Amino acid sequence: MNAITDINQLPTPAVIVDLPTVRRNIASMAGYCRSHGFKLRPHAKTHKSLRIGQMQMEAGAIGLTVAKADEAAVMAGATDDVLVAYPAFDAPRAAILAELARIKMVRVSVDSTHAVDHLAEAARSAGTTIGILVDLDVGFHRTGVQSSDAALALAQHVDQTNDVRLDGIMFFPGHVFLPASAQEKPLADVSALLQETIQLWTRHGLSTSIVSGGSTPTARQSHHVAGLTEIRPGTYVYYDANCVAGGWCQLEDCAARVVCTVVSTAVERKCVIDAGSKTMTSDRRFDAPDTAGFGLLVDMPLARVSRLSEEHGEIELRGEAVPKLGSRITLIPNHICPCINLHDRIWFREDDGRFTRGVIDARGKIH
Amino acid sequence: MNAITDINQLPTPAVIVDLPTVRRNIASMAGYCRSHGFKLRPHAKTHKSLRIGQMQMEAGAIGLTVAKADEAAVMAGATDDVLVAYPAFDAPRAAILAELARIKMVRVSVDSTHAVDHLAEAARSAGTTIGILVDLDVGFHRTGVQSSDAALALAQHVDQTNDVRLDGIMFFPGHVFLPASAQEKPLADVSALLQETIQLWTRHGLSTSIVSGGSTPTARQSHHVAGLTEIRPGTYVYYDANCVAGGWCQLEDCAARVVCTVVSTAVERKCVIDAGSKTMTSDRRFDAPDTAGFGLLVDMPLARVSRLSEEHGEIELRGEAVPKLGSRITLIPNHICPCINLHDRIWFREDDGRFTRGVIDARGKIH
Repeated sequence: MNAITDINQLPTPAVIVDLPTVRRNIASMAGYCRSHGFKLRPHAKTHKSLRIGQMQMEAGAIGLTVAKADEAAVMAGATDDVLVAYPAFDAPRAAILAELARIKMVRVSVDSTHAVDHLAEAARSAGTTIGILVDLDVGFHRTGVQSSDAALALAQHVDQTNDVRLDGIMFFPGHVFLPASAQEKPLADVSALLQETIQLWTRHGLSTSIVSGGSTPTARQSHHVAGLTEIRPGTYVYYDANCVAGGWCQLEDCAARVVCTVVSTAVERKCVIDAGSKTMTSDRRFDAPDTAGFGLLVDMPLARVSRLSEEHGEIELRGEAVPKLGSRITLIPNHICPCINLHDRIWFREDDGRFTRGVIDARGKIH
Repeated sequence: MNAITDINQLPTPAVIVDLPTVRRNIASMAGYCRSHGFKLRPHAKTHKSLRIGQMQMEAGAIGLTVAKADEAAVMAGATDDVLVAYPAFDAPRAAILAELARIKMVRVSVDSTHAVDHLAEAARSAGTTIGILVDLDVGFHRTGVQSSDAALALAQHVDQTNDVRLDGIMFFPGHVFLPASAQEKPLADVSALLQETIQLWTRHGLSTSIVSGGSTPTARQSHHVAGLTEIRPGTYVYYDANCVAGGWCQLEDCAARVVCTVVSTAVERKCVIDAGSKTMTSDRRFDAPDTAGFGLLVDMPLARVSRLSEEHGEIELRGEAVPKLGSRITLIPNHICPCINLHDRIWFREDDGRFTRGVIDARGKIH
């Protein structure tokens, strides 16, 4: 069963990716970047798919971003330019990345001299060079050096180390996971810190040829951040219920949906679908973690997926008629990236309406 | 790299399953069942592994339990007797199960005449018979018929339908996911409802040769439930942080652990490990969902995994020294079953201390 025409023939739960919508999302983000002079380096964590990565590259992306070394090795099949936006310096990862750097452009973002030294050592062993971006914490407080001065010190260390090359600055504004209307102030702070850092590096003769920002929530506000050269949004390719809730997309932009079957209606005011946490993840909706439920019910606006077991999704009905046993229900996941990672296969809806089997090439690549 | 001796050689994040502990857990639950005259039908959802399933069968299990049809097809490699504790009646699943029923004992738990009719039709097409357990809701309110009378009516329907065979009653006491000390009252209610149902069926000449209870939290209280013939615990084979928190096991019984590497210490009072929600799941701890963090830090009793991204686990240090970059940290997941489902491979720690590669045979089988 490699291509089918009737959605009701798909075994459920089935993840469906609507390619016309994906194409529109890719073109729209590429257009935004072009119009503001940014380069686009999409994060492949959302789709983990060579086919989608190639579509992004064909639409003008300059390369792809990944988090882990094994993902880099896979996604290099779709691009010659890979950024590992992760401190991937331990021996097994550094070896994989150094090997890859012999045939592709490889950059890694780091926040320690320890990481620089280990990557340099691996590059030296492989007879190659790895590009380094200094990871600057702009407010999410996860990774990243803690000040402009610390960024300068780390940049100077990179500059003085053989077998690595200083390429610029990377940051992740994860703390601006906020409705678009609330982003102005935190993005102004990000902008100020970046300006300060860039000026400091310039005064010391260091290059900031790349200043790489990221994230779908803030992507279309990037022109308010001074000094930025590129962005790394990932989720925008499919979007999800979080993005709808944050106002970062419209419902119709959600390209990935999960089609489920109703397997039980025995309990009053409830129906059970065959999609639980093994299909959807347990990720909650950022704006209403305790009340929004696990995914957006496209055709049942009042109902709520109130509880997930591993294989059961319990839908609390609130005014809707009880769906028939065996009927289909469609959901938009709260967080599409880890959801895609759960699935061995997805179904692409092609331009002609047929469904073809999709492979998640970099699924489960956690090393 | 199929067998290694030094744990520090494993690429991280690495799931390690300690086989001596698994063997002890399997023997202990088998011993409990023997001493009370229960049969044991472990739920394979926790390990999804033919090797572990075979160990359970060798220790006296009468068969294995699964949730989905594709899991049944895989786990049938370890047993001749499979119970699908799930209303798996839609056409693709019914066809898989009917085919399997030609060579193995297959039973399915259902809560609707619709499900019975569809399974019967599939069994007829395959020229076989499927055993049916009536799913009785004992208080979790997820699936299951809602009363003894409803159970009787469904049992009578099964009894009058060709190509299926009435084998008894199944229930899942998911609402007794409570500390052992708080289980007495709800289990007494379960016991009373079961007694009433069994007596009703007996008066109507219907067989209850199987009365199947389940779940690790209540497993060792099963002798307080009258009428039970078998139990279906799953998690007991590995246990997890939820089980420690609920008092259903000791820390030393936790057979599956995740070994991680420290990749960043740039942010004060924090360290970041290379295990996020793609390694651990976002499942929270049942007794303290907002405060306990994402997994139990075996060697850092004061610290807490306070936030997960997909590839980052942020550990909030509370008094501990900051771990060295590149050093290893070990975690016990909150909920081991969906965690195992995230991994393409695990590492078995053999009796001789070597680590061998393990396959999760039924990983990702959601159909």
